[in-house]
Amino acid sequence: MEKLSSISVFAPATVANVTCGFDVLGFAIDAPGDTLELTLTETGEVRITEITGDEGKLPLAVEKNTAGVAVLEYLKHLGIKQGVDIRLHKQMPLGSGLGSSAASAVGAAFAINELMGAPLERKDLLPFALEGERAACGFAHADNAAAALMGGFVLVRSYEPLDVVNISVPEDLFVTVIHPDVEVPTKQMRKLLKEQVPLKDAVTQWGNVGGLIAGLMSSDYALIGRSMEDVIVEPLRSTLIPGFQEVRKAAMEAGALGFGISGSGPSQFTFSQGPETAQKVAEAMEEVIKSLGFTYQVYVSKVNMQGPTVLAAEAQQQSTV
Amino acid sequence: MEKLSSISVFAPATVANVTCGFDVLGFAIDAPGDTLELTLTETGEVRITEITGDEGKLPLAVEKNTAGVAVLEYLKHLGIKQGVDIRLHKQMPLGSGLGSSAASAVGAAFAINELMGAPLERKDLLPFALEGERAACGFAHADNAAAALMGGFVLVRSYEPLDVVNISVPEDLFVTVIHPDVEVPTKQMRKLLKEQVPLKDAVTQWGNVGGLIAGLMSSDYALIGRSMEDVIVEPLRSTLIPGFQEVRKAAMEAGALGFGISGSGPSQFTFSQGPETAQKVAEAMEEVIKSLGFTYQVYVSKVNMQGPTVLAAEAQQQSTV
Repeated sequence: MEKLSSISVFAPATVANVTCGFDVLGFAIDAPGDTLELTLTETGEVRITEITGDEGKLPLAVEKNTAGVAVLEYLKHLGIKQGVDIRLHKQMPLGSGLGSSAASAVGAAFAINELMGAPLERKDLLPFALEGERAACGFAHADNAAAALMGGFVLVRSYEPLDVVNISVPEDLFVTVIHPDVEVPTKQMRKLLKEQVPLKDAVTQWGNVGGLIAGLMSSDYALIGRSMEDVIVEPLRSTLIPGFQEVRKAAMEAGALGFGISGSGPSQFTFSQGPETAQKVAEAMEEVIKSLGFTYQVYVSKVNMQGPTVLAAEAQQQSTV
Repeated sequence: MEKLSSISVFAPATVANVTCGFDVLGFAIDAPGDTLELTLTETGEVRITEITGDEGKLPLAVEKNTAGVAVLEYLKHLGIKQGVDIRLHKQMPLGSGLGSSAASAVGAAFAINELMGAPLERKDLLPFALEGERAACGFAHADNAAAALMGGFVLVRSYEPLDVVNISVPEDLFVTVIHPDVEVPTKQMRKLLKEQVPLKDAVTQWGNVGGLIAGLMSSDYALIGRSMEDVIVEPLRSTLIPGFQEVRKAAMEAGALGFGISGSGPSQFTFSQGPETAQKVAEAMEEVIKSLGFTYQVYVSKVNMQGPTVLAAEAQQQSTV
């Protein structure tokens, strides 16, 4: 394989939790996502040379940046000392609940592995992406990072050891995601959670996780819908998302199978059967968000099965000996 | 259809909880099980005329007997006044964790429906079986009753409203169940449970429920095995089952995919790939139980896909007008 000197990659946004599957379920969507450009250098250092689209909010210091840490951890693991310049183009809102930091970390880990000639399999890049996430957020959401890295719908069966399972999804399943421009910091959303939950509610929740997985794997759309109920996290978090109940009602009335908070919000997502319904659901949710006076972004797509992709690559100039 | 005057049916034992799926997962096995004989009479009353195999422990009073209540509730639902004599032959130990009361209730509901010319579909008999269970135990385990009634492997996604989902299982999945003759009352086992559980453990549990269902539906034996971990119920209940850790160790060393308490014990079960391994696992568990000085019963089968079956039936004598 020709050795690359620079590469440009896209890494997708992700919906984590997926209503009933707090911390264990996630899936990738086609848009939005981040673009990263990585270039090998002779500096011997990993540097973040540019960040766009973040309104100056993300750290340029490589050890504090999710993409920077992913590259540092990757190189450390392989025992390689290599200069790399990273340019990060954020193309999705920060703190949106769409796995923004996971997309950057996954894109960085994917890009550096491609630059090195892909010595590791894609699934083996997850630990580096998670280290990136940990640097950015204080903890690692494998449900976002695994979905962004592997594409498709994933179950993080276990964190220790990390065990990620791909779940097949029905052909005609469509996702609608809406992001209202309101700020809901992830850390505050985490703080809302209780350390102890009633066993009765936990049983309800794992019944629904089982039902959602069975519904997805058997293309049973009605079962998918019935299983999209969260009795543990959503009742707490939804209170901080303006208009949550109204948006849900509009989405369900427009034909969505089910509804939920994306990650820790404020984005909200639905599943629908077929693109027409997904589009109608989008319009219904937009109406509510508009009436509340918020600007927003809305996305309709299938579950993204690709994960990160190469946008452009440039081969290394061969030095003549 | 010729109207029946009497019927003899078999209803299978069941394994509920299935390690990680407390109160939501269950499956039927080929043996043991209960046999019930129901005969239509002119008495206008539902009576339990005989119970064998229970060492005199089960109530003959029809409103207190799981089979009796199932028949009463069924007839009440249809608005039929009909005399029925029930003979119940217990062919499995009581309080074994093998769904003994569910088998009797399911057998009774199935039998009376057959005698009435099967006006209800099988799945619609579940509420009557559950009323029978409630009479016997004070609460209804739908995970046992639904598996005994429908056969196969079931997920009780929701209790209110009742939503039972059939989960496909791999061709070569075998079950080994061992019942040591020790008494562990269900109510005491229930009391061990805590009303609140750590969210962290609940997340681990629903990751495993998702993994087990995905493993079963995709015939991924290794994933089935990895998912058979219970961090919530087993740590408490296993302390009351003599030799639990040793039996587990022996089963796993003999090649079982995974291990767990059947229902609330003391029976223990494993899944294995293939009949030879399931048989080896049986022998390994027997060795341990024997060395502890207990008598036991051991059963090896596939997951029972039939549920209750008719053993014999007798047609009504036609009265000449």
